[in-house]
Amino acid sequence: MSSRWPVTACSVAPYEIRVCEPLLAEGNRALTEYGHVPGRRFVILDSAVAPSWQDRLLSYFRAHGIQPTFMVVPGGEQCKNLETVGAIIHRLRQFGLDRRNEPVILVGGGAVLDTGGFAASIYRRGVPFIRVPTTLLAYVDASVGIKTGVNVGTAKNLVGAFHPPALVLLDREFFSSLSPRDIASGLGEILKLGLGCDEDLFDMLDAAADTFATTRLRDAAGFTILARSIEVMLDELRPNIFERELCRRVDLGHTFSQAFEMSSLADPLLHGEAVALDLNLSALISVRRGLLSEKESARLANLTDELGLPGVPPAMQPPAVWDSLTERTQHRAGRQRAPLPLRIGECTSVDDLREDEVVDAFRELAARTTAAATADSATRPPRQAAAARLKHVEERP
Amino acid sequence: MSSRWPVTACSVAPYEIRVCEPLLAEGNRALTEYGHVPGRRFVILDSAVAPSWQDRLLSYFRAHGIQPTFMVVPGGEQCKNLETVGAIIHRLRQFGLDRRNEPVILVGGGAVLDTGGFAASIYRRGVPFIRVPTTLLAYVDASVGIKTGVNVGTAKNLVGAFHPPALVLLDREFFSSLSPRDIASGLGEILKLGLGCDEDLFDMLDAAADTFATTRLRDAAGFTILARSIEVMLDELRPNIFERELCRRVDLGHTFSQAFEMSSLADPLLHGEAVALDLNLSALISVRRGLLSEKESARLANLTDELGLPGVPPAMQPPAVWDSLTERTQHRAGRQRAPLPLRIGECTSVDDLREDEVVDAFRELAARTTAAATADSATRPPRQAAAARLKHVEERP
Repeated sequence: MSSRWPVTACSVAPYEIRVCEPLLAEGNRALTEYGHVPGRRFVILDSAVAPSWQDRLLSYFRAHGIQPTFMVVPGGEQCKNLETVGAIIHRLRQFGLDRRNEPVILVGGGAVLDTGGFAASIYRRGVPFIRVPTTLLAYVDASVGIKTGVNVGTAKNLVGAFHPPALVLLDREFFSSLSPRDIASGLGEILKLGLGCDEDLFDMLDAAADTFATTRLRDAAGFTILARSIEVMLDELRPNIFERELCRRVDLGHTFSQAFEMSSLADPLLHGEAVALDLNLSALISVRRGLLSEKESARLANLTDELGLPGVPPAMQPPAVWDSLTERTQHRAGRQRAPLPLRIGECTSVDDLREDEVVDAFRELAARTTAAATADSATRPPRQAAAARLKHVEERP
Repeated sequence: MSSRWPVTACSVAPYEIRVCEPLLAEGNRALTEYGHVPGRRFVILDSAVAPSWQDRLLSYFRAHGIQPTFMVVPGGEQCKNLETVGAIIHRLRQFGLDRRNEPVILVGGGAVLDTGGFAASIYRRGVPFIRVPTTLLAYVDASVGIKTGVNVGTAKNLVGAFHPPALVLLDREFFSSLSPRDIASGLGEILKLGLGCDEDLFDMLDAAADTFATTRLRDAAGFTILARSIEVMLDELRPNIFERELCRRVDLGHTFSQAFEMSSLADPLLHGEAVALDLNLSALISVRRGLLSEKESARLANLTDELGLPGVPPAMQPPAVWDSLTERTQHRAGRQRAPLPLRIGECTSVDDLREDEVVDAFRELAARTTAAATADSATRPPRQAAAARLKHVEERP
């Protein structure tokens, strides 16, 4: 009679990320063909998207014989908490969601995808869900992998799950209703992939930097950049999709970013804006260590500016930056595993960052922001010139 | 340039269920050798167990150079909710739990294992945890598979995760502090495995039924029964551990059990008690359908009684039983998939239960309880004679 029983829990979950434009065309069944419960779907909709898109979604579903039940949740970090998860669970139960045959449809930015995805991951131990990203940032980031999660207090993504979506459907038409800052924020995350993993992507961004204001990546060059971003991201994620390995090149830009993101409660930076600041801080640390040339760090700074991404918030103090690294070290199981750029398109990981070098590099970055602001007010158009340019062409569907 | 990207999220998580007696012997390193953070561990402890075992656990850990941080949570269904999960998450963050190298140790009954396991499943998208079941029910049920979860309102296990433990450590010494009702409740879950999957196990239970009061399954026969239970359970779970297939023989006894479990808020039935009532109800339905012989149904009823398991609570009404089936149908993705016994050791699954046959069978079961109670008061020792017998030998470590 045995007294040891080995068990292996083996799970294989395939999914597809699919460009599907125009997603809401009457003849396009992509959003309705998954699932077997006829006549209805539960749709979680980002409040930032609802004014422009809820009516079109309603028409689309009705044209396919489906009555959607919408739950509109606040977009951005304000929805990303356990209270929203509880509210979604409650609504799913009221709806009587089928456990297997009725995918929850998530339409929104990264925070809504992460929060709705987490609720779906734990409702009856996991129900299928479809992601439809509506922001550039969510398109290239939250949509791609299998992570879901919400914040607890000030701790970002403290709870969550690795839970693959059933399907990811991409359509750039949603970008038409984004603000210029949202576009720039998404470009910040693409910039990370270029700097850390793929020089070609960095070059593409550089070459097209002055077009994004008008194209919003809805032209052929934009398509190429987005496809490349997803491919670079997948190259990093595929062999490590459950993060067994905690040294990850895609963590570049995510060591100090929480400090930037949390720096001003009154006017918080967007995620991609904070990532871009982290990239520049990491580059300055690399330069100080002789890992990266000053020229490449300057090239990064230039492109960051051209993409309409902001400088260091004036109120921010150095200790916040070090605290962010401390928190990340805990998340990365006791080692810093801090990615630092080696050149455009390549990065390494270090465990020995010292507080003094981080603080010095931060001061250098902050001084650069101050200098640029002074120069701006004297000789150039106002700061965030690119973002201002974008504003002129903002459009609504 | 592609516009479709297939991704496969593949996860292989091995774990071991191990009998390890006596677990808390000074020389036994089983509970401390997993993990790489020296000097400390976070231990979630069932309040039902704390009075008898916390000091011994403390001595054990200290003898191994470990300072345990205990979090005592209420045992039983009262802990099994999102509030407790939130409290655990908060404490794990305060503790600064390492994401990979510091397993959360859960010591308790099924509710504590399910709740603590769920908190560990979602904290930083999953940290390792070790289960140490302290009840007979948890030993043969909650410990074995990969399910975690909590109730939301009256909905049992409405949220949860499939998340394998790092390790399961079994020691029957904990049974010494169980109440007779807890022992009987655990026997109810073993009875299910015997009736639905394994005639030998049913026979073993039958043969030893009058010994459990004194042995509490801590003798050789008890060991054989427990090992057989785990093996039968694993035979069912291994090919279907993520419940891709929703027709499951181990769901026998879990179609109507929620109605029994929820029938009396003042004095709720224990899980295994409710399961045993469901088994008998299912058997009566099977008899009415000609699927099971009256003789085998009577044999089940006899053994149920001998094991000290109770009859139908007097206050209970038939609609609750049908509602439970309706809820389970939703959980089983729109089909009843109700297991019904065919003979001792074998069951089938049906989708066409009618309300009238369920209600009639329930009335028959309730009448049997009433008749037994009348006979008891006239000619036999008080009802739940076996449980009363157990009370005399209750011991504390």
